[in-house]
Amino acid sequence: MFREEIKVLDCTIRDGGLINNYQFSDEFVNAVYAACCDSGVDIIEVGKKLCESDEYTRVKYGRWNFCDEDDVKRVIESHECETRPLVAVMYDVGRVDVSTLGSRDQSPFDMIRTACYVADIDKGIDLAKRTKDLGFLTTINIMAPSAAIETDLVEALEQVNASDEVDYLYLVDSFGAFYSEQITSYLDLYKKHAPDKELGFHGHNNQQLAFSNTQQCIIDGVNLLDATVNGIGRGAGNCNLELLLNFLKNPKFDVRPIYKVIQEQFIPLRKEIEWGFNDIYGISGHLNQHPRAAMKQRANEKDQDNCLDFYVECTRLEDGDVA
Amino acid sequence: MFREEIKVLDCTIRDGGLINNYQFSDEFVNAVYAACCDSGVDIIEVGKKLCESDEYTRVKYGRWNFCDEDDVKRVIESHECETRPLVAVMYDVGRVDVSTLGSRDQSPFDMIRTACYVADIDKGIDLAKRTKDLGFLTTINIMAPSAAIETDLVEALEQVNASDEVDYLYLVDSFGAFYSEQITSYLDLYKKHAPDKELGFHGHNNQQLAFSNTQQCIIDGVNLLDATVNGIGRGAGNCNLELLLNFLKNPKFDVRPIYKVIQEQFIPLRKEIEWGFNDIYGISGHLNQHPRAAMKQRANEKDQDNCLDFYVECTRLEDGDVA
Repeated sequence: MFREEIKVLDCTIRDGGLINNYQFSDEFVNAVYAACCDSGVDIIEVGKKLCESDEYTRVKYGRWNFCDEDDVKRVIESHECETRPLVAVMYDVGRVDVSTLGSRDQSPFDMIRTACYVADIDKGIDLAKRTKDLGFLTTINIMAPSAAIETDLVEALEQVNASDEVDYLYLVDSFGAFYSEQITSYLDLYKKHAPDKELGFHGHNNQQLAFSNTQQCIIDGVNLLDATVNGIGRGAGNCNLELLLNFLKNPKFDVRPIYKVIQEQFIPLRKEIEWGFNDIYGISGHLNQHPRAAMKQRANEKDQDNCLDFYVECTRLEDGDVA
Repeated sequence: MFREEIKVLDCTIRDGGLINNYQFSDEFVNAVYAACCDSGVDIIEVGKKLCESDEYTRVKYGRWNFCDEDDVKRVIESHECETRPLVAVMYDVGRVDVSTLGSRDQSPFDMIRTACYVADIDKGIDLAKRTKDLGFLTTINIMAPSAAIETDLVEALEQVNASDEVDYLYLVDSFGAFYSEQITSYLDLYKKHAPDKELGFHGHNNQQLAFSNTQQCIIDGVNLLDATVNGIGRGAGNCNLELLLNFLKNPKFDVRPIYKVIQEQFIPLRKEIEWGFNDIYGISGHLNQHPRAAMKQRANEKDQDNCLDFYVECTRLEDGDVA
C-alpha cells in the first residue's frame, strides 16, 4: 500500500508508559527516538503532559507522564537527524494546565493530542483551541467510541467538525473491540458527521486486530496511523510499528532501525514487563469492556491465565439483572 | 457474523503436532476432542496419516503423525457427545498409502484432507479421487500459493475444478504472507478458475493476520474455516479458534469449552513449547518465505530474538545476484 498522504505516529513511549508508570531509562527513550528518526516515522509522541502535584509526583509516576520541555529537548538533541519527526505529547482532559505551555516556536513540541471521552468533548475542544492558539498542531482522540451512545457520539463529531482548531480527529479502538467491518462503519459515521476533518486511527490488539484494523483504516482513507515499536502498550498493546512499516510501501520508511531497537532494547524489556495478546485481553476486547478487569486478572499471578474463569465472570456480570 | 453455511474445522492436533513431533499425551488429545465436541466445532482434524517405516517410527515421530484407526477410535470413545464433530485426517502427497485405508463406513474418519504443492496437483487429485471412492469427504489444500507462478496455479485450480471427487478447495496462507487485499484477490482467482468448488481457508499468524484474514475470507464467501485452540501451530501458529467462535454469531457454537481446555491444558503446555507471533516470524511472513529459516532462528536460543540480524540476512539473500 502506497499513499503519499499517509503519516505514521509512533506512540511507543506514551502508550508503553501506561504499563510501567513511565519508568523508562533515558537510554531507552533516546533509542526509541533515534529509531523513529532513522526509520522515517513522521511523528513521535513522547508521553503525556499532566500536572505534577504532591500526590502525583515525577518519582512515582515517571518523567514521561509530565514531559518537561527540558527533558524533551534533551531527547531531541541526543540524536542527529536530517529530517526529524514532529514531536507530539498527549493531554488528558482535566489533568493538564495549558498556562504552563509556551508557544510552539519556543517549545520542543509540534503537536498536542487531546484525549477525551464523548462526555468531555467540550473540554477537549476547548483544549484543542487553546493549544492551537499557541501554534501547535492539534488532535482530538475520542476514547471508547465503541461504548458510546451513537447520538452522543454524533453530536461530538459534529462539534469537532465545527472546530477549525482541530486538525485531526481520531477513531480510537480503546477496548480492542472492533472488527474490520465495524472499523468501516464507524469511519462512515465519522466521515458523515465530521467531513472536514482529516482522520487518524489508534488501535488496541486485544483480538489480534490492531494491525489489520489499521490496514482497514488505510483502505477506508485514514491518513494518520498510530503504532508502537513491537506493539508495546497497555494490556494487549497496539499496532506493531514494524509490521505497519513493512506494509506501507512508501520508500521514505526504513524498517531496519525499528528492528534494531527491538533487538537491543525491547527484547530485554520483555523480561521485565508484559504486553501483547493473550486470551484474557481477547475476552475483554470481544466483550467491548474497559481493559481494567483484564489488567487486574493479569496482575494476579495465580489466576492470570484462567481464561475460562474470566470469561464466566465477565459474562455473568453482563447477564446481571439490570433490565 | 452469522451465515448458516459456515463450518469450523479445528486442526489443533494436526498443526500443533508440527511443533512437538506429535508427542501429545492421550489426556491432551482427549481434552481437545472433548472441547471441540462441546463447543459445536464441525470438524476436528486429529493428525496426519503417514506411512510408518524403520526410519520414520511412531516413537520418534509421534502417534498422531500416523493416526491408527484404533487410536482415533479410542479418542472418539473417550467423550460422549450428542452431535460429535466429523473427524478429519491429513494426507501428505508422497508419504501415504491409500491401500491401508478402509472404507468410510468402517473407519473413524469422515474426511481426508490432501495437502500438496502446485507441482504435485495431479498426485493430490489422484489421492482425492481414491479417498472419495472409499466414501470420504475430500479436500485439496494447495500449499504456498503465494509462492506459485500464477499460470501454474491457475492450471491447478482448473484441474481441481474438473475433479468431481474434490469436495473442498483450500486457500492456504502457508507462509503467513497475505494481507487482506491479497486474500480477496487470490479468492477471486480461485472462484474464477474453480467456480464449482466450495472454498476453505487455512491461515498462519506470522503477521498477526490469521484471524483477520479468516474474517476477510468469510466476507468473501468462504465457508470452511480452519482454526486451532489458542492459535497453536507451527511457527507463528494459526487462527485462534476462540477468537473465531467469538466472532461467529451462530448459536450452535459455545466458546466456553475452548477457554476451559486452554486454561487446563494449553497454559501448562506453553511452558514446554512455543508458538505464536514474534518479529522473526513477522519478517518471514512479510518476505513471503518458507518459515524454515525463521524456525531455525527461533531454535537457536542465543540469537532467537535478533530480529535485525534476521531481517538483514533474509533481505541480503533476496538482493543476491540472481538476475
